Amino acid sequence: MIDDIWNSLREVRAKAPLVLNITNYVVMNSTANALLAVGASPIMAHSTEEVEDLVAVTGALVVNIGTLSPPWVAAMRLAARKAAAVGTPWVLDPVGVGATAYRNGAAAGLAAFHPAAVRGNASEILALAGASGAATKGVDSTVRTEASIEAAAKLTDATGSVVAVTGRTDYVIFGDLRRAIHNGHPMMARVTGLGCTATALIGAFLAAVRDPFEACFHALVVIGIAGEVAAERAAGPGSLQMHLLDALYAFDRETLARRIRID
Amino acid sequence: MIDDIWNSLREVRAKAPLVLNITNYVVMNSTANALLAVGASPIMAHSTEEVEDLVAVTGALVVNIGTLSPPWVAAMRLAARKAAAVGTPWVLDPVGVGATAYRNGAAAGLAAFHPAAVRGNASEILALAGASGAATKGVDSTVRTEASIEAAAKLTDATGSVVAVTGRTDYVIFGDLRRAIHNGHPMMARVTGLGCTATALIGAFLAAVRDPFEACFHALVVIGIAGEVAAERAAGPGSLQMHLLDALYAFDRETLARRIRID
Amino acid sequence: MIDDIWNSLREVRAKAPLVLNITNYVVMNSTANALLAVGASPIMAHSTEEVEDLVAVTGALVVNIGTLSPPWVAAMRLAARKAAAVGTPWVLDPVGVGATAYRNGAAAGLAAFHPAAVRGNASEILALAGASGAATKGVDSTVRTEASIEAAAKLTDATGSVVAVTGRTDYVIFGDLRRAIHNGHPMMARVTGLGCTATALIGAFLAAVRDPFEACFHALVVIGIAGEVAAERAAGPGSLQMHLLDALYAFDRETLARRIRID
Repeated sequence: MIDDIWNSLREVRAKAPLVLNITNYVVMNSTANALLAVGASPIMAHSTEEVEDLVAVTGALVVNIGTLSPPWVAAMRLAARKAAAVGTPWVLDPVGVGATAYRNGAAAGLAAFHPAAVRGNASEILALAGASGAATKGVDSTVRTEASIEAAAKLTDATGSVVAVTGRTDYVIFGDLRRAIHNGHPMMARVTGLGCTATALIGAFLAAVRDPFEACFHALVVIGIAGEVAAERAAGPGSLQMHLLDALYAFDRETLARRIRID
Repeated sequence: MIDDIWNSLREVRAKAPLVLNITNYVVMNSTANALLAVGASPIMAHSTEEVEDLVAVTGALVVNIGTLSPPWVAAMRLAARKAAAVGTPWVLDPVGVGATAYRNGAAAGLAAFHPAAVRGNASEILALAGASGAATKGVDSTVRTEASIEAAAKLTDATGSVVAVTGRTDYVIFGDLRRAIHNGHPMMARVTGLGCTATALIGAFLAAVRDPFEACFHALVVIGIAGEVAAERAAGPGSLQMHLLDALYAFDRETLARRIRID
Repeated sequence: MIDDIWNSLREVRAKAPLVLNITNYVVMNSTANALLAVGASPIMAHSTEEVEDLVAVTGALVVNIGTLSPPWVAAMRLAARKAAAVGTPWVLDPVGVGATAYRNGAAAGLAAFHPAAVRGNASEILALAGASGAATKGVDSTVRTEASIEAAAKLTDATGSVVAVTGRTDYVIFGDLRRAIHNGHPMMARVTGLGCTATALIGAFLAAVRDPFEACFHALVVIGIAGEVAAERAAGPGSLQMHLLDALYAFDRETLARRIRID
């Protein structure tokens, strides 16, 4: 297990895969930096004039709807369709789905293009499962982890995607395959976009490792451990963000083996 | 006084209000992080397809025209109109008003939607007062603090908004109510977007405290003190930005009581 | 030589020139902070409604196509044309040119507006030279530094621009004038947008110094040295970014004299 995760990270570092990100304005800098720190090579682009050309040469595609608008959604759809057509793995981050009808429609439309993986928090996964016609009925307005796991399972059945639900504990779900990751630190919730960063790292691992379940699982272990290392060094969320990039860059097998907490 | 400010911050932390930001690209990450550090919950969005839906569920709205373009101004106007209609407090940051006719028109148009507060530097407040038909005539090209305070007073009469003029000393003005805040540090001017960060924090305090004068006053005391704490720890503007987020996160009553400098 | 570079930096700090940036979303925050740290005054804008008005009052213009789309390219073209018309020096950063036909067309179109300087990495300079009809034939797919220098020389002949090729060694080329700068640190490649930051600093030096060859050369020495100072203090790319801003802010003549490595 530890060797598998460590080998995946080594693959990312050795291959330095190109990862195309059509992502939100808030996290463009921080996720590009996380991808560089982990050893990948990020490109950020969003114009319908070129996203298909870029998908053709990239190792993986990351689509994140955080600050969506119609021209961006059009580019996301073109890129996702192209990725599905040419077999480039891609990951969907349905940021804020459930908050507005516009997000629900955009996220459900993208989910139909067969993402290899979907990552969201519990309420997003519940909402996306609902928008995709896969939700349990009568979900409580207070999101319970159990309900989101059930929704994730239905979403993975409906879409064929690995689904990652992140929070205090992270879950990776695909059919009968299930993993729970207990790494991370509560202060990570006070840094903007660390969920988006997890999604970007999943993109890097998809490009290097190919198996979507392994890619999600291994990427979440790596960011969880790097985040807890960073939080222990930090005086607050400002220094946590900085230490996180340093910890991803310096991530070693010994830290992985000592800190990993999964079941 | 100290208890009032401290209680306002505690309200922000206890309520963790949702704050919708239609803001500029430069500061999206840093203001989201400042809002999280102070205890609020930021959302960044800007599509006309959804901003009204988001205003309906947010505790406050922040509108910042720093990197404006027509589709964004359209969304700002929809959101501001909706906020005025449903009674959601909102704050306007007229970045760069006075520099171009386009900014003057956009800022004056937004100011007509009854922001609870307006925050700018001296030249922006003078320009906005002029664009809103409230300026003194014959303002010197060199902005004098006195002239900007006079303009702020006229602007508050014309718009009904609390006006905050920030600089070496910060002023909060509403009718006969006036406060001057002497906290802060000159190195803060070498970090991009700390004025925008002040505006975002005003949004968080508006959501938690409601009284716009108190919200502006208390938010500016908090960022002023956090900024001077950060500057004292910093080797330059790069580390100042990081320490500022940590200082907002760790802000305590003892630091407030020891450092506050107001009249 | 050292005095020339030091005097250029002092000019930037003394004049605090306004630098208008039409740049990509990824680096807006980090390049604004670098410009402030070095002593310049950045504006970020991109609307066709106002960019010409802003060019008229700015000391230099920075155009960076990293996250280009049609409305942005339209604004870049208006601004570049205006800059050429009124004699405002401007610098082009053709990010990613060569990756897509769209980038090739946009970059070549902009290069026709007589930038004072062009900065790119080796593959970008090769691609731009090709797109501008100035490339050598039969360029290897593996970019060799020698080939990029040859392409840079042809590009400078074709456009009249100073061309800066950055990498492990940076080259500044204009006609018979050639400089090589050996400062910098390999870890800088793991921080997103440090090439864009170099371009932004060239903008600041163009505004303060005017001679485009000196501006490029001096700006690249300053960021190279600041980057190696930062890398030596850093535990990884996260802290490198922070220390870089601090090092630009605190840059002194003694560090310059001790570290400079050029020929």
